[in-house]
Amino acid sequence: MKSPSTPVGPTATRGPVLIVGTGLIGASIGLALRARNVEVWLQDPSPTSLALAMDMGAGKLPGDRAPELVVVAAPPDVVGAEVADALRKYPSAYVTDVASVKQSVIDDIIEATGEERETLMPRYAGSHPMAGRSHSGASSAQADLFYGRPWVSVPTRWSGHDAQLAVRNLAGDLGGVLITLGPEEHDRAVALVSHVPQIVSSLLAARLAEAPENALALAGQGLRDTTRIASSDPDLWTRIIAGNAKSVAEILIALRGDLDRLVDRLIDTDTMPGMPVAPGTTAAINSIVAAGNRGVGRIPGKHGSAPKRWAMVEVLIPDEPGNLGRLFSDLGSVGVNIEDLTLDHSVSQPVGLARIMVAPQVLDTAIAALTDRGWRIAGRDQQ
Amino acid sequence: MKSPSTPVGPTATRGPVLIVGTGLIGASIGLALRARNVEVWLQDPSPTSLALAMDMGAGKLPGDRAPELVVVAAPPDVVGAEVADALRKYPSAYVTDVASVKQSVIDDIIEATGEERETLMPRYAGSHPMAGRSHSGASSAQADLFYGRPWVSVPTRWSGHDAQLAVRNLAGDLGGVLITLGPEEHDRAVALVSHVPQIVSSLLAARLAEAPENALALAGQGLRDTTRIASSDPDLWTRIIAGNAKSVAEILIALRGDLDRLVDRLIDTDTMPGMPVAPGTTAAINSIVAAGNRGVGRIPGKHGSAPKRWAMVEVLIPDEPGNLGRLFSDLGSVGVNIEDLTLDHSVSQPVGLARIMVAPQVLDTAIAALTDRGWRIAGRDQQ
Repeated sequence: MKSPSTPVGPTATRGPVLIVGTGLIGASIGLALRARNVEVWLQDPSPTSLALAMDMGAGKLPGDRAPELVVVAAPPDVVGAEVADALRKYPSAYVTDVASVKQSVIDDIIEATGEERETLMPRYAGSHPMAGRSHSGASSAQADLFYGRPWVSVPTRWSGHDAQLAVRNLAGDLGGVLITLGPEEHDRAVALVSHVPQIVSSLLAARLAEAPENALALAGQGLRDTTRIASSDPDLWTRIIAGNAKSVAEILIALRGDLDRLVDRLIDTDTMPGMPVAPGTTAAINSIVAAGNRGVGRIPGKHGSAPKRWAMVEVLIPDEPGNLGRLFSDLGSVGVNIEDLTLDHSVSQPVGLARIMVAPQVLDTAIAALTDRGWRIAGRDQQ
Repeated sequence: MKSPSTPVGPTATRGPVLIVGTGLIGASIGLALRARNVEVWLQDPSPTSLALAMDMGAGKLPGDRAPELVVVAAPPDVVGAEVADALRKYPSAYVTDVASVKQSVIDDIIEATGEERETLMPRYAGSHPMAGRSHSGASSAQADLFYGRPWVSVPTRWSGHDAQLAVRNLAGDLGGVLITLGPEEHDRAVALVSHVPQIVSSLLAARLAEAPENALALAGQGLRDTTRIASSDPDLWTRIIAGNAKSVAEILIALRGDLDRLVDRLIDTDTMPGMPVAPGTTAAINSIVAAGNRGVGRIPGKHGSAPKRWAMVEVLIPDEPGNLGRLFSDLGSVGVNIEDLTLDHSVSQPVGLARIMVAPQVLDTAIAALTDRGWRIAGRDQQ
């Protein structure tokens, strides 16, 4: 199979689907549903955004019938009102949203539905497709955006079975991996795996803003990895963090407790004779790095499985077109699959270091194949 | 050229070179010098470590003559005494060390040389080759370890011209990129680009240690990148951080100031009617993410140049042997060089997303070539 393609099975989502908000997520849902021949209607307060999404093939203007499903893909602070409007306006439709925070959205829906809450809210269940891109807007939309990504289903205590099924069908049709969480549970989870990492990366990168040039010249892969997401859009992240302030603050406060304990030891100059640091300092450092070891070890590996240990081979790559291709062709020719790889750049020389992860049982095969074909092996590790 | 090879020019370092300490760095220096036919002598308090380094070809037992250069590659807390010993024992040799902290090492040398300081210290200049591996010890040693990496030369105010030249020659022979810094300047720089990122990554990953399993299931590439170095060896990092406690603490305290200001805003529940967060909260979030943008933008790009903006194309890759090879062969066949790439894993489906950075002017060529050859383009970005 030369051309990869998403397997298309029977489609569970019934149209028409009305998408309210044609930004990146809304337009991508439209494109994905249209690719499955589901009828999609688009609505957006911005005529330009709406026209763009329609031009891209994400759907058309709403028809006369009532939609079967409404997907509210508006900014988080207006989602609650839009969901309540949709529940009122289309009394037979199921309604979901795609906001990246959930408790505050549900509070807004509760307030906006008022006395009709018990009759309206059974047709609502929340969604959070965990997908995004570095650029926002319909122009970055893509039908594959949700493919293989977690799609969190967030029912409220009112959500009926059919509303939850509508979310599950939508996630499944779009290739998402369904995970069901309660609203608070969801907000704490995304604070932990997404919002706090963003803040921590930004806090670290902010230290570089005023640093001397010659210090930055020493930057290596560790700094690059740790600060990669610090280049994210400040306005987008302000909205996200503000909508999940409580959960984010809880984790940051716990982190600050660890930081305080460490700094207290590092600045203690009351050292014993002949010892470089004060009593307790080495234990404090060791304890936080060891806790980090335990934490990082719990991140699930590829394909949602338990963390896997890959073997690694490092290969020197001259920085010329086609070299990576030859390297991976050479590995492919002996049936070795590349599980992961990073490219490590040299500072001022035209050579890179490819760090290739393979299954431990094929490491020797890989190294033999590369050596035979003249590649320079810079190292290996059985992790 | 099928087989990449390090260009070998004339060798500036004169042997015999005595390497004191045959761990990862010492043994790698030995291997690199032996590859250039420089005579290398090895010394280590552990007979096992010494034998292993000799078996690997890193050098032999010291001969009767005096060495021309002594490289002290011992643990940081004994480097000072070893340097002073070497300066006394070999009155015609230049001496350097490879410790990853410098001011405390130099303080130790000053103390250990005592009244002979003015006569002994001109033959010493410090080094810090910025290279390492995930596993320590001579068994992980490799001749290419320093190739293309920063090699910091750290003269003291006593260091003579010839001692500095010996360090420059060694760095050049081993393929390192020479950067000269004063001791305090060095320690602050490595705190910033290496030690603090390690602590911050560990602090973040430590939050995952007790987190619920279903939260971790939402982990994406951002969390993985930010916590990758949190899997580093606690004992090694305890020694490194303890040896640079002051510089590390200074940066952590500044970072904590930013964190405090942010947390103060996030926990303020004194909101205005209709507003989700208290006054000043959005500005506080925006300000830290924007500062992170500025900081990360200052990290030098590939080859030590100013940060470059690459164009990006995202391609879906079925998880089967040879697919990456075919992808890169296809790009190489139209002369497109891959400047950087990341592989993004799907959660539970056998497909990956390769994010390929290329020069902006060849992006269209790359996409056309890939499309022609049946690849599925998931997205593009002109960053």
